[in-house]
Amino acid sequence: MENFVFQSPTRIIFGKGSEEEAGKETKKFTNKVLLHYGGQSIKKFGLYDKVIKSLKNENIEIFELGGVKPNPRLDLVYEGIKICRQKNINFILAVGGGSVIDSAKAIAAGVKYDGDVWDFYISDKKAPQFLPVGVVLTIPAAGSETSNGSVITKEDEKLKKAYVDENMRPVFAILNPELTFTLPKEQTLYGISDILAHGLERYFTNSKNVDFSDRLIEGAFKSLIKNTYIVLEKPLDYAARAEIMWIGLLIHNGILGMGRIEDWGSHMIEHEISAIYDIAHGAGLSIVFPAWMKYVYKHDINRFAQFAVRVFGAETYFGEEERMALEGISKLRNFYKEVGLPVSLKDVNIPDTYLEEMAKKCTADGPVGKFVELEEKDVLSILKLALK
Amino acid sequence: MENFVFQSPTRIIFGKGSEEEAGKETKKFTNKVLLHYGGQSIKKFGLYDKVIKSLKNENIEIFELGGVKPNPRLDLVYEGIKICRQKNINFILAVGGGSVIDSAKAIAAGVKYDGDVWDFYISDKKAPQFLPVGVVLTIPAAGSETSNGSVITKEDEKLKKAYVDENMRPVFAILNPELTFTLPKEQTLYGISDILAHGLERYFTNSKNVDFSDRLIEGAFKSLIKNTYIVLEKPLDYAARAEIMWIGLLIHNGILGMGRIEDWGSHMIEHEISAIYDIAHGAGLSIVFPAWMKYVYKHDINRFAQFAVRVFGAETYFGEEERMALEGISKLRNFYKEVGLPVSLKDVNIPDTYLEEMAKKCTADGPVGKFVELEEKDVLSILKLALK
Repeated sequence: MENFVFQSPTRIIFGKGSEEEAGKETKKFTNKVLLHYGGQSIKKFGLYDKVIKSLKNENIEIFELGGVKPNPRLDLVYEGIKICRQKNINFILAVGGGSVIDSAKAIAAGVKYDGDVWDFYISDKKAPQFLPVGVVLTIPAAGSETSNGSVITKEDEKLKKAYVDENMRPVFAILNPELTFTLPKEQTLYGISDILAHGLERYFTNSKNVDFSDRLIEGAFKSLIKNTYIVLEKPLDYAARAEIMWIGLLIHNGILGMGRIEDWGSHMIEHEISAIYDIAHGAGLSIVFPAWMKYVYKHDINRFAQFAVRVFGAETYFGEEERMALEGISKLRNFYKEVGLPVSLKDVNIPDTYLEEMAKKCTADGPVGKFVELEEKDVLSILKLALK
Repeated sequence: MENFVFQSPTRIIFGKGSEEEAGKETKKFTNKVLLHYGGQSIKKFGLYDKVIKSLKNENIEIFELGGVKPNPRLDLVYEGIKICRQKNINFILAVGGGSVIDSAKAIAAGVKYDGDVWDFYISDKKAPQFLPVGVVLTIPAAGSETSNGSVITKEDEKLKKAYVDENMRPVFAILNPELTFTLPKEQTLYGISDILAHGLERYFTNSKNVDFSDRLIEGAFKSLIKNTYIVLEKPLDYAARAEIMWIGLLIHNGILGMGRIEDWGSHMIEHEISAIYDIAHGAGLSIVFPAWMKYVYKHDINRFAQFAVRVFGAETYFGEEERMALEGISKLRNFYKEVGLPVSLKDVNIPDTYLEEMAKKCTADGPVGKFVELEEKDVLSILKLALK
């Protein structure tokens, strides 16, 4: 196990009706809020009204900035920073999924900074101060509701970059699984794919003696898979929605990766795909992972065999670990396919036109991934494996 | 899954040499500290000197209060409160195991309170304010290093009582697994028994649809059992000591019990035994649990069968769940025995003299336990089952 420091002070309010706490939780920090959200869905299903009412009950002055899109854009972040400065707003309430939260975090990082907030995403610079961010989560996926990261896209340069900072964790996260009942099937699945990927990035590690966290991540995989089948059949199943939402938070909170060197190569590769094609992050991940696995499994066949046995219940055959490793990869790919996630670039109509460009951009700052360090040629090979 | 609120802001510094951070972490809060510890072991093995040096490096003024014993006493808590008030100390650094930390938490609760700190342990009263507490952990067991609870014994009345308060969680917890190399075998085992018990209290629940947290707890059990055998053979095995220390923290941090109604009946019963006989808490728990399980398993045979299969690898026989349930209980008892933990009152030379008194005191405030609510007669039956 590696040495580590862990601190995650986010207050988690989980359960039915929890969105009604938004006002009270916000009031602990401020009398004036920037309410940040995406499109029409929160208005359509009544969440917007509930949050507004909850804030008004506490006499909190509300400024609004909607319009966050998947793969959230830097332009809107700039707009949010401007509003906060002009109106002297010191708290951001993000109501939505990972994109809204990531956008809110970026605004929170930029308001008290004299330079360009994009600096934090493309250099080692850290924000001198963050506005506190609160969250009402509507999509279990990114884990951004308690995580230390934010991913923003600079559209004109087709750049999608991450900024990680421990001071970025939200001060509270409100999770009501009922709010996810109305998610379209595709969005539910993309979220699940993202959650699974956050486990995979942590699971495939070179750190030794990490049995406990192995088992925590395996437990998350197993429950996630079980509950995926349930929500596909019964989208209004509270229990299954709740498990998925709780897994989505905990798998990316950091705690399941403590003592482990995490990988994150597949995420880097996926960012290049969705930066150019604007496909859902979760769709890109279910495409990249099976290809990545096929490319790297020989690096630690035993770990892949363990994955096959413990997560997918493959039978144990000592001496036949390579076959078992491949069986596990195949089972994961089949799971993606069976539930309706894409498993190849072909499935989302992406041709081989920009593979070289993606591989080059992906490794522009050096190799990506820690389990196996991937250079440009490796990333290109993985992308080619992902073609069909 | 039940609704819940969770927040655990403790900063966890884990790994080799981490005790050297004690001064820096303390300095964030204070220039004056009450150093609270137990007996001679921290001096014998050099930890005391290291901590003193680390504090002095930061020019922190040090006041000391040693002498904490297992089942920490209220008298010493009063003394700590007095010192903090006299010397105007606003921070307590606990160096030791659960007893030292629980004692530090009690002092922290009492300093700013006009009344008797014991009030918090015997009534619903909450401390108006806590001094911040930092921890350097030496025994993985109680989980007190990040938990929200403290257990104190009032010797003259033979009362051992718990106080739970979210504001009681330490501000930082330093865990160096190397510090546990020198623990005597018995103390290692009592710690492991306590850790296991913290999982069992959460595992046996009436809450439905808690598959994810079931699996997290099961993972903790499996890793704990695996690593117990390793440290018994190789006390200086860093990897195994590290896994046990991390499991000990996480299993009682609260996060593995979220969404579940926890039991805690067995802990209440054990407290009555160790209040009278002053045996180690962990020894009492390995005695009480098999008896408790035998008494309550019919309440949810499937859960006990699942425990047998998932934790102890028992073979699955649908339709024979009761037999499997009993097999699981037997396997747990055998594990305790095999590693050298007592499994009956006879094993620790406790006769049946005070069983009635224990059962009565245990249920003085009403039934204990949530999985099955135990009345006086139930507790007595369990204690009788535990006799041999």
